[in-house]
Amino acid sequence: MSGQFRADGSLRHLLTLEDLPRPLIERLLERAERFVRPLGARPPASRVLEGCTVANLFTEPSTRTRVSFELAAKRLGADVVNLEVQLSSRVKGESMLDTVYTLQSLHVDAMVIRDAEIGVPATVAAHVADHVSILSAGEAHVDHPTQGLLDALTVRQHKSRFDTLSIAIIGDLRHSRVARSAWHVFRALGVSDLRIVAPPALMPPAGEFEGCSRHTRLESGLPQADVVMMLRIQKERMAQVELPDADRYYASYGLTPERLALARPDAIVMHPQPMNRGVEIASAVADGPRSVIRDQVRNGVAVRMAVLAEVLAWRSAA
Amino acid sequence: MSGQFRADGSLRHLLTLEDLPRPLIERLLERAERFVRPLGARPPASRVLEGCTVANLFTEPSTRTRVSFELAAKRLGADVVNLEVQLSSRVKGESMLDTVYTLQSLHVDAMVIRDAEIGVPATVAAHVADHVSILSAGEAHVDHPTQGLLDALTVRQHKSRFDTLSIAIIGDLRHSRVARSAWHVFRALGVSDLRIVAPPALMPPAGEFEGCSRHTRLESGLPQADVVMMLRIQKERMAQVELPDADRYYASYGLTPERLALARPDAIVMHPQPMNRGVEIASAVADGPRSVIRDQVRNGVAVRMAVLAEVLAWRSAA
Amino acid sequence: MSGQFRADGSLRHLLTLEDLPRPLIERLLERAERFVRPLGARPPASRVLEGCTVANLFTEPSTRTRVSFELAAKRLGADVVNLEVQLSSRVKGESMLDTVYTLQSLHVDAMVIRDAEIGVPATVAAHVADHVSILSAGEAHVDHPTQGLLDALTVRQHKSRFDTLSIAIIGDLRHSRVARSAWHVFRALGVSDLRIVAPPALMPPAGEFEGCSRHTRLESGLPQADVVMMLRIQKERMAQVELPDADRYYASYGLTPERLALARPDAIVMHPQPMNRGVEIASAVADGPRSVIRDQVRNGVAVRMAVLAEVLAWRSAA
Repeated sequence: MSGQFRADGSLRHLLTLEDLPRPLIERLLERAERFVRPLGARPPASRVLEGCTVANLFTEPSTRTRVSFELAAKRLGADVVNLEVQLSSRVKGESMLDTVYTLQSLHVDAMVIRDAEIGVPATVAAHVADHVSILSAGEAHVDHPTQGLLDALTVRQHKSRFDTLSIAIIGDLRHSRVARSAWHVFRALGVSDLRIVAPPALMPPAGEFEGCSRHTRLESGLPQADVVMMLRIQKERMAQVELPDADRYYASYGLTPERLALARPDAIVMHPQPMNRGVEIASAVADGPRSVIRDQVRNGVAVRMAVLAEVLAWRSAA
Repeated sequence: MSGQFRADGSLRHLLTLEDLPRPLIERLLERAERFVRPLGARPPASRVLEGCTVANLFTEPSTRTRVSFELAAKRLGADVVNLEVQLSSRVKGESMLDTVYTLQSLHVDAMVIRDAEIGVPATVAAHVADHVSILSAGEAHVDHPTQGLLDALTVRQHKSRFDTLSIAIIGDLRHSRVARSAWHVFRALGVSDLRIVAPPALMPPAGEFEGCSRHTRLESGLPQADVVMMLRIQKERMAQVELPDADRYYASYGLTPERLALARPDAIVMHPQPMNRGVEIASAVADGPRSVIRDQVRNGVAVRMAVLAEVLAWRSAA
Repeated sequence: MSGQFRADGSLRHLLTLEDLPRPLIERLLERAERFVRPLGARPPASRVLEGCTVANLFTEPSTRTRVSFELAAKRLGADVVNLEVQLSSRVKGESMLDTVYTLQSLHVDAMVIRDAEIGVPATVAAHVADHVSILSAGEAHVDHPTQGLLDALTVRQHKSRFDTLSIAIIGDLRHSRVARSAWHVFRALGVSDLRIVAPPALMPPAGEFEGCSRHTRLESGLPQADVVMMLRIQKERMAQVELPDADRYYASYGLTPERLALARPDAIVMHPQPMNRGVEIASAVADGPRSVIRDQVRNGVAVRMAVLAEVLAWRSAA
């Protein structure tokens, strides 16, 4: 995936965090931090991307990630167009590329792509002209790089250093792009104690999540954790993998105040949303004093501003 | 509903006109009047809301009210995002609030909400952070406050004073949020002769529309009216309430030129749109010299600019 | 269709190229040329339409033409609203006009309309107020004027003069608005050798495409052509008109490198997109050195900027 970088070493695309060097991740987080404002403050405004065009290509239009990217681009002064399009559903790969070439010819500088099929962002990135950047906004179950960055930024705001942290990622690890991007970024940042906690049916295949300890019980994965990352459990998946129903899932894996007490007293609780309250997380935890879930959302737009500014820096300098 | 105001007495939300004091309504109308331009003139432009973000949350995207709010916000310099979302259809109330909290964390300053379920705007308003404003763009059959204000502005442009006016509201009063907001605003502005005219099946319950005279025949409700407000009759409702069909409705309640002659010679005719021509109103009336229906649309964007500027004044001053 | 012009002779609407005088076409092309930038360059930016409002009324939102118009308007500084609306599907003509009158009352200056029914743009243009401009973005099978202009601009960039050119338009001529607008513009620009090539079932009726030679075989229509314009073949139409299937169509009418060799060595290949690769055109041709298909897209936004600037010039000067 070295295809994410330009010949001069600068970041061109953001498709995965898997091979991002730690100094680049840290620079992105610092850049994002400068875009963070407290709730209620006016968001940062800039015209650094004035004259640039960002296209959001989402299979469905009303997602929080689309809105987050849209506001990030607008707050940097870019023009934004939204397209509801499922690139991978086009009959042939070439047809997908025709859509992309069209946007490129319309002087779109960055395309933000969400697609349910593996490889779509990378295929697009491999074919667009040199000046176009591709940003993945969620690729199948494998990558969600801006989510990984916002998760890292959120941890960074609450914990002084990464290497001594214990981070537990809990839930449907098998199908989660959020978990994979978290794993990439926390590993790069030197987190030594990474734990994944899932029922056996939702545990990822053996070769994945290298370096993480595996736990099938909360009582084993949670103790003394500094960071508790909950994942969304998709109800439609429960039937497929012969999971117990929502109530029984909650009984075994739901994050209740009692279970959270197993973690460190200053542990933070994260969730990528949307939440199934009463399934993977209790409302008392989601809305409680250790929850940083809303911070994650706020950090998301800051991270997306940082990434857009980074990949389009050559243009704003021109 | 005192929840619409801040501790300092300023307007924070606009959910209903029911408890708005007359001076505030008058100030909003005056403020809106300054945003009115004749057809063909360039609309007023301002950057007073630059750096502010307005989110439109509509269950369907292509309504005139959505476009009116979108243009109002843009012409004040705000960033606008549109979401097609039915807040009340989310499985639980908390899930609805999670959507709202997410937008709040994205630094959305004002949310414009249309929802078919009673109480959604007020529930949202009761939960968002202090700096966020909620504007109802139509709530079930109970409130449509910006419509009430634009109706009042339209009347104000044509009649010198409110207290001596006779206003007849005609049609499906029972199911009409437009009628209820009109009743709120005209009562607050001191209109003494308010009449509601509907077939018995579409007459609102007895406790509602206090102070209005009730008429089941146009010939009784129209004479000497200064203002004739027609309502949209929804055809799908006709079957439900055992109404006659469209032709028979028109025969009894359609506003024809002949019937309009019962009103004052200088009466104005209003309709919130979309119109069923040939059902509740004749085209000769809708397009005739006494129709101010297009003025209502023009006034709508002016009123929405005034409301946005009012509730976000603290931010533009900051 | 003199209704496209104002009393002073300036262009007000763009509904068809059929009666556009050659000097006006040439001025529009020159104006558009100034908006063209090479791929990768920053697109031209201007605030000439600041304070103007453009509404896109498309029956489906995610078309390249909608995005092209949206970016053209934004890059001139206009506010843009998108509506997904099928004007002709409204129950009555008057209801269609009510939608239009509403937009007009919202101070929309230009409406960009795509509709599958003949006459919709002209009907709207005949009814809107004097200061409103209507631009057709594709009308049934009869007109697609901005496509015709971008096709002419593309030819102009590669060929020194029009009158000596041989242009072959190939495919489903019968149902193609692209072909009709191309015919209008090339005829106006003095192209002497215009050929249409189609299977008999897709050949337009006898009275149409006056002045064009007709060919039912590529081998007859292609030789020595300077410009080869391919049209999209709609698969759903194949069944209707008893066409052979896609493979057999390709065997007889698909533009392969071998067949392209019949045209002049410096011939250019055009296609309005979306392409059916392997049906009407081979990928080796679509992506080959003589293809100017992506130039067409780039020119499309330039042409739409030129047209918007032309019809709204009175406002930007005001």
